[in-house]
Amino acid sequence: MSQATAPRGLEGIVATTSGICWIDGDKGVLSYRGIDIHELAARSTFEETTYLLWFGKLPTKAELADFTQKLAKARVLDARVVDLLRSLPKNANTMEVLRTAVSLLGLSDAEDKDAGHEANVHKSFRLTSQLAMIVAYFDRIRKGKEIVEPDASLSHAGNFLYMLTGEKPIAEAERAFDVALILHADHELNASTFAARVIAATLSDVHSAITGAIGALKGPLHGGANEAVMRLLYEIDAAGTDPVEHVREMLAKKIKVSGFGHRVYKTEDPRATHLRRMSHDLGTAAGNPRWYEMSEKIEGFVKGEKKLNANVDFYSASTYTTLGIDMDLFTPIFAVSRISGWCAHVMEQHENNRLIRPRAEYTGPAYPAPYVPLDSRS
Amino acid sequence: MSQATAPRGLEGIVATTSGICWIDGDKGVLSYRGIDIHELAARSTFEETTYLLWFGKLPTKAELADFTQKLAKARVLDARVVDLLRSLPKNANTMEVLRTAVSLLGLSDAEDKDAGHEANVHKSFRLTSQLAMIVAYFDRIRKGKEIVEPDASLSHAGNFLYMLTGEKPIAEAERAFDVALILHADHELNASTFAARVIAATLSDVHSAITGAIGALKGPLHGGANEAVMRLLYEIDAAGTDPVEHVREMLAKKIKVSGFGHRVYKTEDPRATHLRRMSHDLGTAAGNPRWYEMSEKIEGFVKGEKKLNANVDFYSASTYTTLGIDMDLFTPIFAVSRISGWCAHVMEQHENNRLIRPRAEYTGPAYPAPYVPLDSRS
Repeated sequence: MSQATAPRGLEGIVATTSGICWIDGDKGVLSYRGIDIHELAARSTFEETTYLLWFGKLPTKAELADFTQKLAKARVLDARVVDLLRSLPKNANTMEVLRTAVSLLGLSDAEDKDAGHEANVHKSFRLTSQLAMIVAYFDRIRKGKEIVEPDASLSHAGNFLYMLTGEKPIAEAERAFDVALILHADHELNASTFAARVIAATLSDVHSAITGAIGALKGPLHGGANEAVMRLLYEIDAAGTDPVEHVREMLAKKIKVSGFGHRVYKTEDPRATHLRRMSHDLGTAAGNPRWYEMSEKIEGFVKGEKKLNANVDFYSASTYTTLGIDMDLFTPIFAVSRISGWCAHVMEQHENNRLIRPRAEYTGPAYPAPYVPLDSRS
Repeated sequence: MSQATAPRGLEGIVATTSGICWIDGDKGVLSYRGIDIHELAARSTFEETTYLLWFGKLPTKAELADFTQKLAKARVLDARVVDLLRSLPKNANTMEVLRTAVSLLGLSDAEDKDAGHEANVHKSFRLTSQLAMIVAYFDRIRKGKEIVEPDASLSHAGNFLYMLTGEKPIAEAERAFDVALILHADHELNASTFAARVIAATLSDVHSAITGAIGALKGPLHGGANEAVMRLLYEIDAAGTDPVEHVREMLAKKIKVSGFGHRVYKTEDPRATHLRRMSHDLGTAAGNPRWYEMSEKIEGFVKGEKKLNANVDFYSASTYTTLGIDMDLFTPIFAVSRISGWCAHVMEQHENNRLIRPRAEYTGPAYPAPYVPLDSRS
């Protein structure tokens, strides 16, 4: 039995082929289906980008209209899921809520139990729309507010902000959020996407794969970083200290500063470029550039001291806060976007499947270890 | 950026070190912490085996008594989970029910939100006991029967059968089920365990990892095989055809016969040895050797024709059916056992963690692909 030992965490190991996302970590390039993320951030929408990720090409006008309509039509949440959300504690962990509600969605999704491609596409439409609704509904419910019914005339980004706040967003906010959704929509075999593919590779269903991906995204080494960044900004603000001095002290105490460095990028994360700009523009427009300014100072200091670049999480913290989004919704909102890429990867996995089943190097007691009878053990 | 391309499905790739389970697929050896599975099947219990998997050694008398008591004490199901089970359709997919209920358990598990080792041990006790309760409760509820409260005086195996059937099991049935739990408790980096480790490696919590593992186990390439075997046995029985002729026709039509072959074992799956014997003994004792006899004929034929060995799933189908367990509980019961190994692997992952984040070989449109404006697309 020939075996090859991979580096820890499968770093640098090519686990599959994929036509979805291409990253050049050395040059700081991210692209979906070959199209540069900067082009998409400047000119595309979440709907169009999702079409691109799922079907491998940019849609025609008619295809985009059809896609947008299907996504809007899927904005219906099963009553059983709404009941669940109402029954949960108001202080429940938002990612645990999302994980449970999405799993329950699978039970409510009576159509298309098989794993065929058409069924997967249908489920992906429903999941993309319904996952966003779950996040908005639960935030309204926990705050004791009426839930806001979806508005089919709004874009995916606009409708989400509308359902969250109860107000139609201004164009700048809608566009900023749309761009954030585009930027986070896919990132090759990140841990949650890889988890989704491992699950899907047993030919399990889309909801199972996405439920697992949400569980992975919940981990502080994956989705939790922008929340940690915001916690730091609030902490500095509350203490009234100088951001640079505060972070200098953290580094001296060997406390990790979240939002810097990336397993894949050795130069600037191309997503950070846009989030930095949006953080600046939104802060300025709102007459509250404080979070941006603090972030900028910290970025410059950490880059100088540790040679680490700000990653996608660093400026998304101040961007989302300026959009009025609660800190503990940052990771659920990551899922609102990444569901797009997760679904693309699950469909791709099912199209050309092989069970993902690696081996472990055994480091335990030598075989055969004796089964010492209970009476003789000490 | 140096990369190495792994075989499809990470076959033969060593993804991590682990001291839990050692398999020699060429020689048909399975061992937990170095102890041969045949020794454990002959002399151990699920409680003792779970202690071994979690803590790396056989327990002393006092340790085993303490462990058994803790597991029995954890047989308490949050009212919110019971409410959920009662609210679900009676024909709901049992694995979707289990996945959702276990995710909800995480929300109810208010203690120990962090990922420290002690917290993980506490959660593992609760999950192991509560997962079994969920399976039994839901089966009672969907059949319109009263739920059966756990009996702390019974073993894990005995209590499960009691909660499922409402009757204290006879010694032979309890022992057979206990052995089945031992045999399925761990199997190195099988797909569900690997999914659990990928999720846990983001430092996400135990419930997230197990919820993902359940989703992976649900897939027909992983947990679904013994159910497929039983469906075949029922089909042959209903048709009144000769088992060998039936399977000969399937092979001629290139229809897959479930329960044969294994990615890792090139000789007999050592678990199959015990399940074959239990299927025989239980069938004979129950005066109903039919399922065993059909299985034996099919096994002999497939081995002769295809050089494939029966795997763990082949004889577990007839064994569970003889124990009076419904076909669609086979995979949930796999989880009732494998939770033991899943928890061991999650704890091991957290003890010496690195994010699991491989790469993909990009096969999509060449970068940079143009962003053609909407009006110019055809």
